[in-house]
Amino acid sequence: MQIEANNPDLKSWVHVSPDSDFPIQNIPFGIAIPPGRTPRVCTIIGDKVVDLLEAYDLGLFDGVGVQRSVFKNRYINELMALGKEKTREIRQRISELLRVEDPHHAELHSGRILVSVSQCKMMMPVKVGDYTDFYSSEEHATNVGTMFRDPENALLPNWKHLPVGYHGRASSIVVSGTPIHRPMGQTIPPDSQQPVFGPSKLLDFELEMAFVVGKETRLGQRISTEEAEDYIFGLVLFNDWSARDIQKWEYVPLGPFLAKSFASTVSPWVVTLDALEPFRTVGPDQDPKVLPYLQYSGKKNYDLNLEVAIQTENGDEKVVCNSNSKYLYWNMAQQLAHHTVNGCNFKIGDMCASGTISGKTPESFGSMLEISWKGTKPIQMPDGTSRKFINDGDKVVLRGHGRKGKLRIGFGEAAGKILPSNPFK
Amino acid sequence: MQIEANNPDLKSWVHVSPDSDFPIQNIPFGIAIPPGRTPRVCTIIGDKVVDLLEAYDLGLFDGVGVQRSVFKNRYINELMALGKEKTREIRQRISELLRVEDPHHAELHSGRILVSVSQCKMMMPVKVGDYTDFYSSEEHATNVGTMFRDPENALLPNWKHLPVGYHGRASSIVVSGTPIHRPMGQTIPPDSQQPVFGPSKLLDFELEMAFVVGKETRLGQRISTEEAEDYIFGLVLFNDWSARDIQKWEYVPLGPFLAKSFASTVSPWVVTLDALEPFRTVGPDQDPKVLPYLQYSGKKNYDLNLEVAIQTENGDEKVVCNSNSKYLYWNMAQQLAHHTVNGCNFKIGDMCASGTISGKTPESFGSMLEISWKGTKPIQMPDGTSRKFINDGDKVVLRGHGRKGKLRIGFGEAAGKILPSNPFK
Repeated sequence: MQIEANNPDLKSWVHVSPDSDFPIQNIPFGIAIPPGRTPRVCTIIGDKVVDLLEAYDLGLFDGVGVQRSVFKNRYINELMALGKEKTREIRQRISELLRVEDPHHAELHSGRILVSVSQCKMMMPVKVGDYTDFYSSEEHATNVGTMFRDPENALLPNWKHLPVGYHGRASSIVVSGTPIHRPMGQTIPPDSQQPVFGPSKLLDFELEMAFVVGKETRLGQRISTEEAEDYIFGLVLFNDWSARDIQKWEYVPLGPFLAKSFASTVSPWVVTLDALEPFRTVGPDQDPKVLPYLQYSGKKNYDLNLEVAIQTENGDEKVVCNSNSKYLYWNMAQQLAHHTVNGCNFKIGDMCASGTISGKTPESFGSMLEISWKGTKPIQMPDGTSRKFINDGDKVVLRGHGRKGKLRIGFGEAAGKILPSNPFK
Repeated sequence: MQIEANNPDLKSWVHVSPDSDFPIQNIPFGIAIPPGRTPRVCTIIGDKVVDLLEAYDLGLFDGVGVQRSVFKNRYINELMALGKEKTREIRQRISELLRVEDPHHAELHSGRILVSVSQCKMMMPVKVGDYTDFYSSEEHATNVGTMFRDPENALLPNWKHLPVGYHGRASSIVVSGTPIHRPMGQTIPPDSQQPVFGPSKLLDFELEMAFVVGKETRLGQRISTEEAEDYIFGLVLFNDWSARDIQKWEYVPLGPFLAKSFASTVSPWVVTLDALEPFRTVGPDQDPKVLPYLQYSGKKNYDLNLEVAIQTENGDEKVVCNSNSKYLYWNMAQQLAHHTVNGCNFKIGDMCASGTISGKTPESFGSMLEISWKGTKPIQMPDGTSRKFINDGDKVVLRGHGRKGKLRIGFGEAAGKILPSNPFK
């Protein structure tokens, strides 16, 4: 689809540096609290948050036909519920407001509608209903299977026939910047039959992306791969924090539970699928051929560069992973078609994460489990320490962007600092 | 705790038959749509729905200090959010309104506040945030382990050390009476490497109970076994519909997904933990001893008789299971303490189901998988047909109640009829 707001030649009256994730072509949505104001729906350009409620009150959305409550809101769910036709109109209007041509004279009000992002408190953009985590990177699944099962049969028999996934915990999805206490839990010491209780010793990140559902389905309704993108409003970066030692003991036979549910961190801006249109690309060949309901046509993967950095308490940073969402074996359309093939219904705000996105080389592995290969290959940090997993005081930062010529569309950061375990109570 | 409204000697001016689940001592909460009215918070006595919004408008809650919006609501979440002190006041007032003494002269308004349950449409009582399914019946886990793994080591090593659980799908939890289409999905034929797509052939129920969380926690906060019941507002019957053939193919390594997410059915009335106080009982001995955070004191199990009936399309009914919630190895306080030990937060309306509640004898097995022992022991139906699993047109009905002397407190029904698979779209 050609989207006028994606035109790489558009320029804004707001200064945007060339390496910004948020040029005028992006226009993502999020919830910010500007100083002295209530939470509200905003977008961002360069390093300025654009307060859409103030813009609304200034009449800058006149003629678009949208209620004030859409912007005076703690979540973007109501905005998404308007449907893609209307949210495209809204993005188009915002694009016009911010252009050098500025037919609506928005620049006259820049003091009221623009706020430095550093002055804003960002909130969870979406009220998440259900959250599903897929396991869609062949390289990640192969690495895990190699480490824990059998290198000769690293992938389980179902893996290439369906996008394996499981339900996750929605309540503990938090916005970038929220500190996370190291989880306590049961683990089993080597060669012991008796579990012990204490802080997780093998705390890990997982580099993922998640899509946000913007259109609901009824119970019993299925979404085809062809229709799926109509149901996807946009994407965020997603860190599926994982306590490997808790996971190992608890996860049979019903899957990960407390090893994951203590927290997941998302980036604050939902980047629309429309804004990511220029980065569509072909996915990996799927062999064996998948069942008809999982077949698709066209470019359904996205070429988005992803990285993970660890910042130690002294402020040093080391990038430990460079990956790309185009590596995913199963695309979002297939995930959604599979998820609904049994009639499972979706609500607006439901979130589906990709699973850890690893590439073929160790530099592109998306978790410490893989990077340190189960702790056998520690990595050196700039401050002279080493890491097998994540230490207290470490901040893990996910970043992601697409680039095509001079156009760069990005996600900002999904960052979280690990605090020591909470003492009981 | 002694609760005045539980006094078995209380009598109501509303007729209640002795075998009713809903005497004046019950006073559960649910959402009903009486004829010509909007959805609202109601209770039930005998076979009369009590419209609490009408009662409110008549001034019958004067002095209790509660907002009208609590009753003019599509869910009981706001009611639960008032906290147990206030909801106890509300139940106490309702109890007074319905007593033969009737100090508030409610009976004068019986034409307005009472509606036959047969005239009301019942709705989901709770807006469910996250839903977790435990696996807390030793007999069920043993049966499953015996059938699918190793009779000598039927329970996995972690089972007696922690209440195994996993995240489930909240969006597809539906109220009793909602028909369910047989799910479509991938299954693997015997001795094949190539999955096929079609309607599930092994559709099953699971007899469970679920508790509803009425008090939220912060991320990082833990709930001790001693505090846990403060966070539990009440219970419902829960049918965790399961497609065994889909489950078998999909569930490694991350647990059940589409085999469960097509639907779960709950009873419409949330019976408060307070009303179930008379049925407290001791749980099974736990050996080996559990870790300190899972230890508890007092009676934390509930003696509630449970049954499952299958009704064929001609209206015949056969009770296929008689079980009891007191059999559960892990109690709700332990489930909640475990669930939050890693800091996972709870929101009001979150639901936790018990897992299939089976007893020791085949008559008390809580799923067709166990009753028919993987299909090897079909059961005979009154209409001359037999069942290994659930057929199209069958209605599965869960019922449950506690009895102590002449006092009977019950849940009504969680019923769902299976319709043929939806054709694509």
